[in-house]
Amino acid sequence: MAENGLKKKLNIAVVGGGLVGSLEALYLAKRGHNVSLYEYREDIRNTPQVRGRSINLALSVRGRTALKDVGLEDHIIQNHGIPMKARMIHRTDGSTYEIPYDARTNQCIYSVGRNYLNGLVLKETENYTNVEKHFNHKLIEANLQKGALTFLNTDTKGTVQVNADLIIGADGAFSAVRKAMMKQPLFDYSQKYIEHGYLELCIPPTEDGQFQMPANYLHIWPRGNFMMIALPNQDCSWTVTLFMPFQNFKAIDSEETLLDFFTKYFPDSIPLIGRKRLVEDFLGGSPSPLLAVKCRPYNVADKALIIGDAAHAVVPFYGQGMNAGFEDCTLLDRLFQYHHDDLAKILPEFSETRWRDTFAISDLAMYNYIEMRDLVTRPSYLVRKAMDDFLFWLLPGVWVPLYNSVTFTTMPYSHCVKNREWQNTVLLYLFYFIIFCVFVGVWSYLR
Amino acid sequence: MAENGLKKKLNIAVVGGGLVGSLEALYLAKRGHNVSLYEYREDIRNTPQVRGRSINLALSVRGRTALKDVGLEDHIIQNHGIPMKARMIHRTDGSTYEIPYDARTNQCIYSVGRNYLNGLVLKETENYTNVEKHFNHKLIEANLQKGALTFLNTDTKGTVQVNADLIIGADGAFSAVRKAMMKQPLFDYSQKYIEHGYLELCIPPTEDGQFQMPANYLHIWPRGNFMMIALPNQDCSWTVTLFMPFQNFKAIDSEETLLDFFTKYFPDSIPLIGRKRLVEDFLGGSPSPLLAVKCRPYNVADKALIIGDAAHAVVPFYGQGMNAGFEDCTLLDRLFQYHHDDLAKILPEFSETRWRDTFAISDLAMYNYIEMRDLVTRPSYLVRKAMDDFLFWLLPGVWVPLYNSVTFTTMPYSHCVKNREWQNTVLLYLFYFIIFCVFVGVWSYLR
Repeated sequence: MAENGLKKKLNIAVVGGGLVGSLEALYLAKRGHNVSLYEYREDIRNTPQVRGRSINLALSVRGRTALKDVGLEDHIIQNHGIPMKARMIHRTDGSTYEIPYDARTNQCIYSVGRNYLNGLVLKETENYTNVEKHFNHKLIEANLQKGALTFLNTDTKGTVQVNADLIIGADGAFSAVRKAMMKQPLFDYSQKYIEHGYLELCIPPTEDGQFQMPANYLHIWPRGNFMMIALPNQDCSWTVTLFMPFQNFKAIDSEETLLDFFTKYFPDSIPLIGRKRLVEDFLGGSPSPLLAVKCRPYNVADKALIIGDAAHAVVPFYGQGMNAGFEDCTLLDRLFQYHHDDLAKILPEFSETRWRDTFAISDLAMYNYIEMRDLVTRPSYLVRKAMDDFLFWLLPGVWVPLYNSVTFTTMPYSHCVKNREWQNTVLLYLFYFIIFCVFVGVWSYLR
Repeated sequence: MAENGLKKKLNIAVVGGGLVGSLEALYLAKRGHNVSLYEYREDIRNTPQVRGRSINLALSVRGRTALKDVGLEDHIIQNHGIPMKARMIHRTDGSTYEIPYDARTNQCIYSVGRNYLNGLVLKETENYTNVEKHFNHKLIEANLQKGALTFLNTDTKGTVQVNADLIIGADGAFSAVRKAMMKQPLFDYSQKYIEHGYLELCIPPTEDGQFQMPANYLHIWPRGNFMMIALPNQDCSWTVTLFMPFQNFKAIDSEETLLDFFTKYFPDSIPLIGRKRLVEDFLGGSPSPLLAVKCRPYNVADKALIIGDAAHAVVPFYGQGMNAGFEDCTLLDRLFQYHHDDLAKILPEFSETRWRDTFAISDLAMYNYIEMRDLVTRPSYLVRKAMDDFLFWLLPGVWVPLYNSVTFTTMPYSHCVKNREWQNTVLLYLFYFIIFCVFVGVWSYLR
């Protein structure tokens, strides 16, 4: 009997030391298992971060729940995350207005730095003697049935053989573990690139180190078929991301066309970014693609499992990629607890129950791009939102609007979608009822 | 100037010597290009064929069109293919009835042996000095951008480097060329295994070498959630295929459960297959999975292209897998002609125009499983079919029923689907009109 009441200490290899991989290693370490973490790149804590170009992410309740489990929530919320209480919509004339995320209880999402958070979780694993970390280890072969992995040590150029009781693939959207899984029969898989790409720009801090825009907002410039957003960074800069069809990017091939484009659609952003920097960053960069991956099952018997982007890469428009990956770790931990670390029960159950929710958030994220870049500016959206907010205020436990249930609860994503469906039905009947009442009213009056 | 009016003789590597690969090699040889065909397995013409277990296929108009182009249609139709003029539906009591494929013009589909047809096409390439065939060559590396391939010669264990102006991947549902293509950015891909598998059985000829069932039919035992079908072979045997959910296969694990199952659902087939052989073949075999692959684009610049199952593996229920693959070859040949062998025009155009049709036949094939195993027994199906047949007879050039347009024309698959949609609309309005007429009639009478 190992410590922590474990029947058996498992040797677990976690492939991928990104956000989800390192969090999963930490969860497993807390359960008392022997964890070896393998990461292709070098230790992110030793990588110098390009100032103002850090990619930031929106942390919401699912992610916070996981961080709370491993004792890091308070640190992140109090010392690092920048609360964003509302969307700030920028019109083409430069004027703005707010759309709160949660008018009822004032809950926020938090802008956090990917590298900072990753480093923090990795550092936390150092408090556990049962975690070994191996950076610069590239997975080159995997026999998932046997729990055998071969890594190339990119420092020494030597190969390393690993045998584990359990392999967890948390190695991202282009997962090597998933690639090995695809050779299994009956593995359903789809990858879809959307026709839009993204390009990152930067709004630097003022000379005295202040934010150039109101800080506690996610800024959005919705322009119908494309949009720009900005999330605040700790150093008072903003990471600005332009999402647009590739063909539109292609059409902007000179300083002139670029400045024409920005003057027409994002005039208020030009002085913020700075004309020179805009030209340099835009014409010096090239748009990156956006990929969605769906697959199932997530496990190979009781030997291997994929989680995070490896299992379900989503487009970024619901801000749920990291949150969904962190939630995988939380749910997996609950199953370890419930099934007393019995992998033969844990892995199939995780796979059979989780895919509906990850498929749901994938579809929601696709849909939310249209909402963010287009619908958000329409009166119909604002009317629906006002109605949702009113009913949410009236019936807080019953009527939870879609965005709130996804972002501020841990309700399974597929239930969030189902909720929305019955809410739509109710509103439709309410609409019929109002029409009927008006009709009866007019009739009574005329009679 | 090369012969055949070619501006330039291209060196083309065709990967895969199955039905589609060898047909494509033949098409290209006829155009005067230098073709090298690489096949993983040994020459199919030297492989002894297990008697009565040959997999047979339904050849229809798209496949015939391609075979006509290369001068093989007459031979196949006159000397080999067995015409199937109708479905023969077997009820559980052993009684049968016919549903013709084309009551108006009596067109047939033809049962052909996969190996026979493959061998015939390979043999035909021997009439061309500009075709080289390399069997036992397994693709192990591909740089599609550069047109470079590395094969392992599984005889000599040596590797072979190949450089080509054009690589054509016709290497089937598990294509190695497609795997190399997947590394390209912006490649959309999906593979889906259905929850049903298939198992092949055999009805042998009678002792005096005759068919045990009426030969000119595709026999179907539709049973709702599963079905059995039989296609005739040249040696008067039948290849019988049982399609069923994997879990149902799993439940049949003994002679007793097997015979109970067949006695309940396919009683008339037991004496035809033979009790002993049924038990041996069923319990000695295991069900194979059914895979559908969709992807796009099909090309890498002007250097590589995938066709056939490599580009669009479909489930077999519309009998269009081979026919769609052969049609790829035909369409590609038309583009070679139209664009004067200019690969920079041919490959993108093929990719951009073909995927809508292959996606359509993939969806139709999924749908047709439900039709074959279930709907075909319902009165609503027979009423619709009677109406379709009547309108087809009345308006032959205008009202072509879905099955006919897919099977007996070369109308693009996506147009067949669109046709069906407007036909549905017309029938709906016709229905409304009839209801209206009845209403008016009753009202006139009562007045």
